[in-house]
Amino acid sequence: MVMENANQTLSQKKVVVIGGGVIGASWTALFLANGMRVVVNDPQAGIDKTVRNYVVQATPALTALGHDMTSVLGNLSFEADLAKAVADADFVQENGPERADFKAALWVTAERFAPAHCLFFSSSSGIQASVQSVQMKEPGRLIIGHPFNPPHLLPLVEVVPSPQTPRELIDASLAFYRALGKHPLELRKEIDGFVANRLQSAIFRECVYLVSQGVITVADLDSVVTNSLGIRWATNGPFLSFHLGGGAGGFPHFVDHLAPGMETRWSEQLKSTVHFDEATKKLLVEQIESGYGKQSIAELAEARDQKEIAIIKGTKNLSR
Amino acid sequence: MVMENANQTLSQKKVVVIGGGVIGASWTALFLANGMRVVVNDPQAGIDKTVRNYVVQATPALTALGHDMTSVLGNLSFEADLAKAVADADFVQENGPERADFKAALWVTAERFAPAHCLFFSSSSGIQASVQSVQMKEPGRLIIGHPFNPPHLLPLVEVVPSPQTPRELIDASLAFYRALGKHPLELRKEIDGFVANRLQSAIFRECVYLVSQGVITVADLDSVVTNSLGIRWATNGPFLSFHLGGGAGGFPHFVDHLAPGMETRWSEQLKSTVHFDEATKKLLVEQIESGYGKQSIAELAEARDQKEIAIIKGTKNLSR
Repeated sequence: MVMENANQTLSQKKVVVIGGGVIGASWTALFLANGMRVVVNDPQAGIDKTVRNYVVQATPALTALGHDMTSVLGNLSFEADLAKAVADADFVQENGPERADFKAALWVTAERFAPAHCLFFSSSSGIQASVQSVQMKEPGRLIIGHPFNPPHLLPLVEVVPSPQTPRELIDASLAFYRALGKHPLELRKEIDGFVANRLQSAIFRECVYLVSQGVITVADLDSVVTNSLGIRWATNGPFLSFHLGGGAGGFPHFVDHLAPGMETRWSEQLKSTVHFDEATKKLLVEQIESGYGKQSIAELAEARDQKEIAIIKGTKNLSR
Repeated sequence: MVMENANQTLSQKKVVVIGGGVIGASWTALFLANGMRVVVNDPQAGIDKTVRNYVVQATPALTALGHDMTSVLGNLSFEADLAKAVADADFVQENGPERADFKAALWVTAERFAPAHCLFFSSSSGIQASVQSVQMKEPGRLIIGHPFNPPHLLPLVEVVPSPQTPRELIDASLAFYRALGKHPLELRKEIDGFVANRLQSAIFRECVYLVSQGVITVADLDSVVTNSLGIRWATNGPFLSFHLGGGAGGFPHFVDHLAPGMETRWSEQLKSTVHFDEATKKLLVEQIESGYGKQSIAELAEARDQKEIAIIKGTKNLSR
């Protein structure tokens, strides 16, 4: 992370956060932490209090990550009229409802009233840039900047341009997120769910299968992951892990020796039936309750944040 | 981890490690770190040198995790005759070739010559206890103790009894691995691949798909994971993550609101075609080379170990 550069590059730049829900509020905290002026555009009554509360709650985590959070709330304001909000904006980060028509209309207004240099990002996890931008004059201007919850903590931002986006706009987007201390990754093609959520769906199908088959409980499965794959994947991703799993022969050895067995398992896993039917939902909810019900969501979330910070801080200065 | 208790409980107990390959050598290092006497049973010429070298290489990591590694090599010996090796053993941890006939024969010998109190574990990732133990007089005595590579670092041990295994033997097995500072998880049913490797297969299918479709490169996909899902899953498993992802409504809210979309994605993912054909293998190997080829396997493995240790140490004292 490059907090010092970030503050020099972004200090007093203006970013409009459209939508003050959980994702928008978390972006707000991160932008403020980097010295930016943030205008939240959300028509909901009481949104100012909600967002301010979120920023206050996120302050210890951002401070632990090295940000100076004193007096950042003075850089936070609210403007319910989108045309006014974007009038002198340098960046827009959209976190509105996941409806294509809503987003398409919003970008028409943003394009009409924002300065020509303003970068447009959508946090959408489901509606691709080429779909959201259909009514824009310059549809290539809109880029997905999909964070991983909570955006103020987890480094990933999936940067997904539409096919019309010019290269220099993609580069400017990557530079923006890097200046914020994030780890932006550019996807080479639009695809439903992007990368991280597709991986998450794939693994979760097998998780639900194993619990529904009575092989393991919800809490024990979580424990399997935190004590093995999680540590491995917080350290190296799946490919590099298998590159090392191949011993001195690396990935070529892995592919030749372990792939046939893995392909056989894939065929078997594809045949399994997994649905969120009522019985499955009931089983999962009961096991969540018996595994985690003694602690409140807030307590569990705070413990998660502490561990995530420990991992981010503990690994970031270690060379690959 | 309970190093002090571990040393009191296990000090000078004798464990026979069958098979001195990478997994057997890593177990050896861990057992020695806990003050145990280790006898390696492996007919291969030069096995003593190989295993000693592995222990020496693992020493910095185990020291960093709080173990006293001075003069542990004095507790290491080698005995190529299995009957002699197990004669006064308290534990056996088997890491031989993954062939059912080989393992079945081996357990007949172990059962015949080991003391009645000796616990029998197999590190097998593929051959279930009920298959390995068919020729034993007391087949329930054999239990899978499947570690996650490298066993001396990663906490997970999947403990998988056969249907005949008595409860007290399962409890003794869990106690043994806990005394070693490991995190044993008991599976409730035998299943091919157990839990961790099934999850790994499921996610890797989608990884290979996304790279083969040109959505992302191997190295960028690894980066997506280490900067998002890896941190999340090293902290909390998939279920607890979604429990918190549901906000104040927790997992019940998640299931009702996000499950339909996830089920739609599952259907789509099941339809995709993914094979380790020659073109796919070539693509993956080329991208591994361009992404990681500048560093040797040994350098990459050392960097991995350092990060894994940082994560294990950084999170272990944080309450859930």
